[in-house]
Amino acid sequence: MGSPETTSFSSQSSSSKLLFRQLFEKESSTYTYLLADASHPDRPALLIDPVDKTVERDLSLIKDLGLKLIYAMNTHVHADHVTGTGLIKTKVPGVKSVISKASGSKADILIEPGDKIQFGSLFLEVRATPGHTLGCVTYVTGDGPDQHQPRLAFTGDALLIRGCGRTDFQIFTLPKETFVYPAHDYKGFSVSTVGEEILYNPRLTKNEETFKGIMENLNLAYPKMIDIAVPANMVCGLQDMTSKV
Amino acid sequence: MGSPETTSFSSQSSSSKLLFRQLFEKESSTYTYLLADASHPDRPALLIDPVDKTVERDLSLIKDLGLKLIYAMNTHVHADHVTGTGLIKTKVPGVKSVISKASGSKADILIEPGDKIQFGSLFLEVRATPGHTLGCVTYVTGDGPDQHQPRLAFTGDALLIRGCGRTDFQIFTLPKETFVYPAHDYKGFSVSTVGEEILYNPRLTKNEETFKGIMENLNLAYPKMIDIAVPANMVCGLQDMTSKV
Ligand SMILES: [Fe+2]
Ligand SMILES: [Fe+2]
Repeated sequence: MGSPETTSFSSQSSSSKLLFRQLFEKESSTYTYLLADASHPDRPALLIDPVDKTVERDLSLIKDLGLKLIYAMNTHVHADHVTGTGLIKTKVPGVKSVISKASGSKADILIEPGDKIQFGSLFLEVRATPGHTLGCVTYVTGDGPDQHQPRLAFTGDALLIRGCGRTDFQIFTLPKETFVYPAHDYKGFSVSTVGEEILYNPRLTKNEETFKGIMENLNLAYPKMIDIAVPANMVCGLQDMTSKV
Repeated sequence: MGSPETTSFSSQSSSSKLLFRQLFEKESSTYTYLLADASHPDRPALLIDPVDKTVERDLSLIKDLGLKLIYAMNTHVHADHVTGTGLIKTKVPGVKSVISKASGSKADILIEPGDKIQFGSLFLEVRATPGHTLGCVTYVTGDGPDQHQPRLAFTGDALLIRGCGRTDFQIFTLPKETFVYPAHDYKGFSVSTVGEEILYNPRLTKNEETFKGIMENLNLAYPKMIDIAVPANMVCGLQDMTSKV
């Protein structure tokens, strides 16, 4: 049995002041992440994978914390919920929506692997983790003395905790102590680490034949929200907005 | 508008190695917390408010992380779910159940306000936070150079995030940067801070008349699990076990 040296709260360089919150939307079991540079005078913030239904909650929290939201980002075009980015843009002028160019979606900023997304003195790196969808990316907090350590990886649907991740191996080149934050969890896990997933994720610990068997036997249902969510999410939720207004 | 200086990941003294995980049980919206001293050779661990339905998940995670579970603790006698402590004791020999003496429940260790619960070189302090039930306690991580900073407060049902906590003011004597981890959340929040709750918790920001009105208008339903959960939890879930075996 392995025992990865992993702590969920860990040492951080004193110069970095990452404010971080994990938020949950129960119906679609989606995690939304709020990150901000709390040491910057503007307290710039971003949301990863916001859900339309919980936009009010998220914006209220951002207000409570005295943050300035600058980016509303998605890891991919979600099939199971409508992104909150469109609604956020109507409520908070100046916020820019962000998604990968490879997703084929519309957004204010189309990012590519290797790009950096700056908020205050902190940044996220973009890594390509295709598989679940072509344009899936993982956002990873920056490396370096001013950035949060251990790093945090927001994997979207590319890696679920212990789940049969439609896993991309790019994630596993990150340091083992990197925290893994998925877009969903159905078992009540909130975080894992790269080291832990290497040891215990079925996608990695089973051989290919066994894994194929697991996936075939999952009998995954047609995602209930897919016909509503995908068209809306391709335009960052804005389609939905205009038809309502 | 306030802007509490709060970070969810924050600096920690290098000597302390708190391993921390937040786990969720969806049906009762209960949070279970896993804490361990990862720098101690035994990697001693404890669970706060485990739920019977998620014991398998929790024990499997503890195994994956190479931890030795020593305590299964409750903040109070829950009315909304059956505690996992009884089941854990049958599965992991040597684990001791912990609850407050004032709860009137049975457990291996009956703690009182001011007691310390040691795990490796880390410890939890017990604070009395009665109100929701007579024996409600809040467990707070230790203060001092070897302990995690900021401190973490596990408030049980004494304080819910932004919710009408049946709040006890004892919690608000803790430093503002103290993280607040409740036993439940129904809106998808995972954590708050003492500073944030002082500013935004309705129990504290509204005057008594307004608050009374809020509470009366909640029309709280009779907790669906109360008739099963309370008798089972008074004996730390062991009653349930013996009738099944
Ligand atoms: Fe998704
Ligand atoms: Fe409860």
